[in-house]
Amino acid sequence: MNRLSAPARFSLNQETVRQWSLPELVSGCAAAGVRAVGLWREPVRRFGVRQTAKLIAGAGLRVSSLCRGGFFTAADPVGRAAALGENRRAVEEAAELGADTLVLVSGGLPTGERDLAGARERIADILGELTPWAAGHGVRLGIEALHPMFAADRCVVSTLGQALDLAERFPAEQVGVVVDAYHLWWDERLPEDLRRAGAGGRIVSVQVADWVTPLPEGVLLGRGQLGDGCIDLRGFRELADGAGYRGPVEVEIFHPGLWAREGSEVLREVIERYRRYVA
Amino acid sequence: MNRLSAPARFSLNQETVRQWSLPELVSGCAAAGVRAVGLWREPVRRFGVRQTAKLIAGAGLRVSSLCRGGFFTAADPVGRAAALGENRRAVEEAAELGADTLVLVSGGLPTGERDLAGARERIADILGELTPWAAGHGVRLGIEALHPMFAADRCVVSTLGQALDLAERFPAEQVGVVVDAYHLWWDERLPEDLRRAGAGGRIVSVQVADWVTPLPEGVLLGRGQLGDGCIDLRGFRELADGAGYRGPVEVEIFHPGLWAREGSEVLREVIERYRRYVA
Repeated sequence: MNRLSAPARFSLNQETVRQWSLPELVSGCAAAGVRAVGLWREPVRRFGVRQTAKLIAGAGLRVSSLCRGGFFTAADPVGRAAALGENRRAVEEAAELGADTLVLVSGGLPTGERDLAGARERIADILGELTPWAAGHGVRLGIEALHPMFAADRCVVSTLGQALDLAERFPAEQVGVVVDAYHLWWDERLPEDLRRAGAGGRIVSVQVADWVTPLPEGVLLGRGQLGDGCIDLRGFRELADGAGYRGPVEVEIFHPGLWAREGSEVLREVIERYRRYVA
Repeated sequence: MNRLSAPARFSLNQETVRQWSLPELVSGCAAAGVRAVGLWREPVRRFGVRQTAKLIAGAGLRVSSLCRGGFFTAADPVGRAAALGENRRAVEEAAELGADTLVLVSGGLPTGERDLAGARERIADILGELTPWAAGHGVRLGIEALHPMFAADRCVVSTLGQALDLAERFPAEQVGVVVDAYHLWWDERLPEDLRRAGAGGRIVSVQVADWVTPLPEGVLLGRGQLGDGCIDLRGFRELADGAGYRGPVEVEIFHPGLWAREGSEVLREVIERYRRYVA
């Protein structure tokens, strides 16, 4: 095992090195001993779902997650039907890729709406239709809570507790939760919610990025390199492990500073930081 | 009563019209029939605390809140002593102004620290020393939870539930909570926490601003004009009223777009929006 070889549970989310094409991602991961990747639908579809699946399988890689389905909060029938159709396609893609989980980001408040509770209820409703489809394709759905700063425009599910309340309406082998340190670190209920998630066999994905300030405009691209911020990432990973999680730990950083650098140099740094702050 | 006359419970936080000097604020409020204002320490100190108190009293205005004390999370003895000294001065100023409450923003994580629970415990510790001083000056302290997006650099108290956990360690007539719709709107526990706060006589201040996206860089100046965003402000105010709150409802908007306009025009618009979306 060379010095570059990534820890066994390390997974690289594709968006961390979005400057890489899919072939570059696969060869870069192989060179660094990375065993799992998190993929995104848009680049996968551009490259071709079948071609991606072949490329990934040929390199002996595992797909720890496919991002993403969701955006379930449309209040009108047309928007709802479109969301359901799009999510069925996402399930098919996840199945073809053999992804461990399809990540679901619930969606924010539709324009002009102020009813958070109503939007949250619509998510449960559409999940009720999507879940049999996913089960039929052997795909497990993972509900991801996003940081409350995204509640308006991206995801009305803001805490792990809420994600569990939704997931637990369905069988554990069909619907679980994605726990991302960046979104959840501030919540004092996190330890008890992680125990609840683990006890129910609901943790389908663990993701990490650090919290750095000041947040950039739009806040989406503010995820920091591991160790650059204030999250106790090792403590977070240990909580998940303590709750029984044994799967991949996926590094998902959206940061223009990382995208501007050479991909293999970024991956080397990410692995080094992962060893120091997470493993 | 002319058409400009503000609703009885309306209060204008000074930072909403920061383009105004204190004399302009006082005369502008008098002209619009505003009965209460929220003040900030920095402009008050620049103008002079005693002079401000005279000006306010002379116009028959009430000070609904003084912002702000707090920043209690220093881990070192020197930083802790400095924070305590600064907060004693803030209490004296609040007493001189006759403010209903001194707003406390707890402070974020000290640089290099990752221990949220430890930082939260230090707040309780320093409050134990500050509270008798405040009681001796007849000043009520109000713990404000800030949105979780401020947990790292501004306020480790992120929910109303946490603010209440802290406040309830002290007598209700000495320590209460400040409830600000902008910081709390996303939290599904808000209704039950507001009931708990009201039942204990802990609500010392109610503030409103709307949530608009995209958030600006640094996110601090992203508070939106009432009605421009997605918060159910009337529902929020009704929850507070339902919990027994009868005090002022303070409009606190930090927005460069408002600061660039003529102050009395901004106040007129704020009052109109308040009638439409809050009252």
